Amino acid sequence: MNRRIILYFTGRLICIEALLMILPLIVSAIYKEDCYIAFLIVITIAFSLGMFLTWVSRPRDKTIYAREGFIIVALSWVVFSAIGALPFVISGAIPSYVDAFFETVSGFTTTGASILTNIDELYQGSYKGILFWRSFTHWIGGMGILVFVVAMTSSVSDRSIHILKAEMPGPTMGKLVPRLRDTAKLLYLIYIGLTLILIALLWAGDMNLYDSIVHAVGTAGTGGFGIKGDSLKSYSAYSQWVIGIFMFLFGLNFNVYYFTLIRRFKDLKHCAEAWIYLAIASVSIIAVTLNIMPLFDNSFGEALRQGVFQVGTVMSTTGYATADFNTWPQLSKAILFVLMFSGACANSTAGGLKISRVILLIKSIRVQLKKLIHPRSVNTVKFEGKNLDNDTLVATTNYFSLYMICIIAIFIAISLDGVAEAAIIAGEGNIIETNFTAVVACFNNIGPGLGMVGPAGGFSFYSPVSKIILSVAMLLGRLEIFPILLTLAPNTWRKHK
Amino acid sequence: MNRRIILYFTGRLICIEALLMILPLIVSAIYKEDCYIAFLIVITIAFSLGMFLTWVSRPRDKTIYAREGFIIVALSWVVFSAIGALPFVISGAIPSYVDAFFETVSGFTTTGASILTNIDELYQGSYKGILFWRSFTHWIGGMGILVFVVAMTSSVSDRSIHILKAEMPGPTMGKLVPRLRDTAKLLYLIYIGLTLILIALLWAGDMNLYDSIVHAVGTAGTGGFGIKGDSLKSYSAYSQWVIGIFMFLFGLNFNVYYFTLIRRFKDLKHCAEAWIYLAIASVSIIAVTLNIMPLFDNSFGEALRQGVFQVGTVMSTTGYATADFNTWPQLSKAILFVLMFSGACANSTAGGLKISRVILLIKSIRVQLKKLIHPRSVNTVKFEGKNLDNDTLVATTNYFSLYMICIIAIFIAISLDGVAEAAIIAGEGNIIETNFTAVVACFNNIGPGLGMVGPAGGFSFYSPVSKIILSVAMLLGRLEIFPILLTLAPNTWRKHK
Repeated sequence: MNRRIILYFTGRLICIEALLMILPLIVSAIYKEDCYIAFLIVITIAFSLGMFLTWVSRPRDKTIYAREGFIIVALSWVVFSAIGALPFVISGAIPSYVDAFFETVSGFTTTGASILTNIDELYQGSYKGILFWRSFTHWIGGMGILVFVVAMTSSVSDRSIHILKAEMPGPTMGKLVPRLRDTAKLLYLIYIGLTLILIALLWAGDMNLYDSIVHAVGTAGTGGFGIKGDSLKSYSAYSQWVIGIFMFLFGLNFNVYYFTLIRRFKDLKHCAEAWIYLAIASVSIIAVTLNIMPLFDNSFGEALRQGVFQVGTVMSTTGYATADFNTWPQLSKAILFVLMFSGACANSTAGGLKISRVILLIKSIRVQLKKLIHPRSVNTVKFEGKNLDNDTLVATTNYFSLYMICIIAIFIAISLDGVAEAAIIAGEGNIIETNFTAVVACFNNIGPGLGMVGPAGGFSFYSPVSKIILSVAMLLGRLEIFPILLTLAPNTWRKHK
Repeated sequence: MNRRIILYFTGRLICIEALLMILPLIVSAIYKEDCYIAFLIVITIAFSLGMFLTWVSRPRDKTIYAREGFIIVALSWVVFSAIGALPFVISGAIPSYVDAFFETVSGFTTTGASILTNIDELYQGSYKGILFWRSFTHWIGGMGILVFVVAMTSSVSDRSIHILKAEMPGPTMGKLVPRLRDTAKLLYLIYIGLTLILIALLWAGDMNLYDSIVHAVGTAGTGGFGIKGDSLKSYSAYSQWVIGIFMFLFGLNFNVYYFTLIRRFKDLKHCAEAWIYLAIASVSIIAVTLNIMPLFDNSFGEALRQGVFQVGTVMSTTGYATADFNTWPQLSKAILFVLMFSGACANSTAGGLKISRVILLIKSIRVQLKKLIHPRSVNTVKFEGKNLDNDTLVATTNYFSLYMICIIAIFIAISLDGVAEAAIIAGEGNIIETNFTAVVACFNNIGPGLGMVGPAGGFSFYSPVSKIILSVAMLLGRLEIFPILLTLAPNTWRKHK
């Protein structure tokens, strides 16, 4: 294994993170807040450390094989979070480092689960720079930390496709790889463009520029960190509409934007995932809207806005809230529960299983059923205009098995947390409901669950060990399990070619 | 499709069920109970109907293809339950037919989930024949309804292996098929032998003959219907030890008994599943025993008995109880929760995923991980001394995916039950905990779950629709999904060929 290239990349990343922190530093400076010092300290340390690492480990051989790719991805996300947590601690916004780490992982993985209980205080106090950094981590993590590096780094060979493979969500790599660096750049341009449009639209409404930017980056990364205790409930209907619609747009397969931009309109009709995603979203919205109309004095417009927003927040795994759907009728809750697992499209910033993986799963099971009756039959499975080989189907069902096993294992691990149990009992929550939805919400990078971790609650009552375990859950979900698992496997680190 | 053979088999089965009901008829007669009339009526009707069906549909072609095999299995289990429910209704023990159907499905699938709230009354009253029939359904369903028919019917060609394939639990068919009918007979002989030993051992203790028989057949089928409100809690330590150990024995892969009987001791070392099962059981028992010792005044013997019994009841998916493990420490609860999913061995009477399937799942995921790093590597997977082909692994992961999808779908379906929701709220239970564990307990054929469906509760509060849905869950779990799914698929019934 090429350890130098792993160190080299890690060093590069630390430098880039230091540069990215200049933005919150500027925000702090504009608001004349004390926390700019925290950013200054972290930027200095991180940049020096990063440069040092890059310098000592400059590799002779820059080829990256699959193994290195997975480890670079896993390691860099952990290092990014570990360093990203420092400003919270140094500024005093989040005194405990474990809490800050949880919050940062939640940010980068675009989960949006929070341990903060005093968010309104921080907003009123002098922590606007910190809150901006908190939401900005969503934006950075949404498109992928390493996609960014690849886009920016000229010295990386096209073999770094292994890195993108490990970091991009979804069952297949898609068709966006004629020239890797160009693709990564174009993806980021689309991402930046959409974010800017969203900022402009929000600023035109009742939000000031700061609020617009914070919510735009949180929506773009499908994260969900807000700056108010009641999330987006107190903003105008206009702002809620805009964010509701943009959550869907950021959950759409970016291939759609890519093909539109490069005018390959013919390829659009092969974007089956995107169309199925929009179809599922439409049907869900209609069902939920009709189901909740009585709650809103039978006002169709009001119910539609709530329906669009809550279906959008769950499907895109963002996690903003304008209503507590815990109190909605059973049918709506059931629909939202299923959508929590499916998530949105691959090649988007959303989490969850991804629509395309759900489709492949169903196709794989259908092949299985056919084989039971006609054991010798040969079944070709088509998706998005291409024949799928057996390996892709097997990988999909294997992924789903592993996904379920991880969720059950992590659920059991945090069920052993006596501190959380006492807190849930004291808060009159249910232990199984709270723990189970906490794991599902973290793993699928959604944010809020039900019970004590619902939109009105938070994750602060878990013990430090559970917070670390839930952080791992968020990373497993965001990186789709394999990179983390391979990095933890002792085999990977054994010395052999 | 050969519809005549399906009707023919169904007719045969109804006749056999009528004959099987002679046993509870005799029990009723011995105790001079009125309910013998109920059995007499049902026997007469069922036998006439069965003979009529067999007579009108005698098939010219007795070959059974996979498609027919699956449909025969699915259909016969439903018909068996529909007719088996009649004595409960006619005798007045369970006035509602839906309730009686739920109870009978729960019996034949060896689940042991009950809607009865007055079990002690029935036992004291004149319903001993009915309660015997209730437990006896476990014994019939445990080994398989159709394995029995194949063992008894001389006129069936060896092509009926398709029936056994569809009915026998576990990922592979095992090695027991040199001559089909002989194997089925030998399996039943082992089953009957073990049951008789168990009856004798229980009778030698504090149970009378009736109690011994009822509990022996319930244990043999790994069912769990008891005849007392507190299950086995009030019986002696001796009886609890005997049943505790026999639950493990009936969860063991029957290959072990088979190879021992035919003196192929060399093959025993290839029974990997059985040894792993016993290893997991031993480790779990030790962990639970040490964990719960403080609850029993640090008495190792007492804690060990409780540990053996509760691990046995969960792993073998039986469902008898001698303690409410809901109140045990978190670690023990977590262990038992995991064992709920794994279940015991394939080719046993137990439910759940089966140990061998869990092993194959893990092997499949390991192959996947290796492939990520070395995409072109060829990996051979061995299990029980044989190389596994890719198809078996794919079938296993597909099964697991389908299993999880079914559990989630059924959970959502019963979550829509407003009647149950009101009852759970009134009973101060938690909705998600109760509904989720109800589905898991039914699907894995365990019986009791947690919350309102825990060992102290029952399933009576669900609406009729939910009871039907949960009955389907039990059948899906017992028949391992595919037969039911294929029967429900419109494609299956299309006329072609």
